[in-house]
Amino acid sequence: MEPVFLGAVTILALLEQAYFSLQVIYARRKYSVSPPSTTGPPEFNRVYRAQANCSEYFPLFITALWTSGIFFNQGLSCVFGVLYLYGRLQYFWGYAASPQGRLAPLYVCAKVLWALIGCSTVGVFLSFSKIYLNTDLLQITTAALGLY
Amino acid sequence: MEPVFLGAVTILALLEQAYFSLQVIYARRKYSVSPPSTTGPPEFNRVYRAQANCSEYFPLFITALWTSGIFFNQGLSCVFGVLYLYGRLQYFWGYAASPQGRLAPLYVCAKVLWALIGCSTVGVFLSFSKIYLNTDLLQITTAALGLY
Amino acid sequence: MEPVFLGAVTILALLEQAYFSLQVIYARRKYSVSPPSTTGPPEFNRVYRAQANCSEYFPLFITALWTSGIFFNQGLSCVFGVLYLYGRLQYFWGYAASPQGRLAPLYVCAKVLWALIGCSTVGVFLSFSKIYLNTDLLQITTAALGLY
Repeated sequence: MEPVFLGAVTILALLEQAYFSLQVIYARRKYSVSPPSTTGPPEFNRVYRAQANCSEYFPLFITALWTSGIFFNQGLSCVFGVLYLYGRLQYFWGYAASPQGRLAPLYVCAKVLWALIGCSTVGVFLSFSKIYLNTDLLQITTAALGLY
Repeated sequence: MEPVFLGAVTILALLEQAYFSLQVIYARRKYSVSPPSTTGPPEFNRVYRAQANCSEYFPLFITALWTSGIFFNQGLSCVFGVLYLYGRLQYFWGYAASPQGRLAPLYVCAKVLWALIGCSTVGVFLSFSKIYLNTDLLQITTAALGLY
Repeated sequence: MEPVFLGAVTILALLEQAYFSLQVIYARRKYSVSPPSTTGPPEFNRVYRAQANCSEYFPLFITALWTSGIFFNQGLSCVFGVLYLYGRLQYFWGYAASPQGRLAPLYVCAKVLWALIGCSTVGVFLSFSKIYLNTDLLQITTAALGLY
């Protein structure tokens, strides 16, 4: 499997983080909050925290995306990946507007991340049973469900 | 090599981070610290900082785990990985109880991380000498030590 | 392709982060800032923020380094990688001295990170066209430029 689509979603994720970082730089200028300070008026604090939260979850997202994409299914993982990145954009804009505005998209992102972790877990189990138990669980399940 | 065990430890690491994040959410509710604020009573600050520190080290850990697992040895890296994750759990609980409580497990985690970085370095050197110097250093060492 | 050089740059990046973390520990002792507190005199705050910024960008750097190295070119990516790590060292030392001292190396790091994201994008496009469009864009371009 060539992970071209995982690569594409990864680039999208990097570009999104770059966009968030630029928004913090603009907010620093607008509200005159010079480094190393990280607090200012509430408008600045929300933008700063939105970016900090997205940065904190970036490695979790990339890790779950690739684990799910490699062990389970690249296409599905990338669909979840794009959903997550879209949710993060809504989260960032929502949080910049008000603390309440961050909640709905944050729940979506959390659910998508759980889906990626779930797919990763299933994928690792399937790989394990294939290699070490010499059993293709996916094929057995498909056959049992009469889908085969 | 199929990195099934590295995948499994990675999933464990993701689950642990999810657990830490949930603890911060509960602490925010318990001590009435609403976002974007990140400070409150000492009890809250400790939980918040414990999670922030674990998040900060998550990418270092995942990077060292996989570099060590791919270039050196999957099994040993996964043993270190599980040790690290166990240490982080003790660190989180210890820090939530008192600033002193974080120290002992933090030292364990730091040592395990150094072990993973050390294994990565040895692994990259061995791969390099095999590919570019056409020399299997591992075999030479084993032979020299009379272990072969 | 054996990613030995990507592995080597990754280890360098881990060692650099370890160095930054140690500097924060020394600064905590020197300026008597005990965890969970993260603020103190300006000298401490600058070291703390320098390390926090480097940590925040570590996953973006590692992700861009490997995406560029796998999809585009390992050698070029590693040259950019070493440049980035050197820039981060200058950034850390500059920021520790004064807020202005961080700017010049930060711009270098940002440009190098953009270069890695650019190489990743080109690499993913080339892989995509090779696999799904059955077209070797690199060969066509080289031929069109009379370089072939």
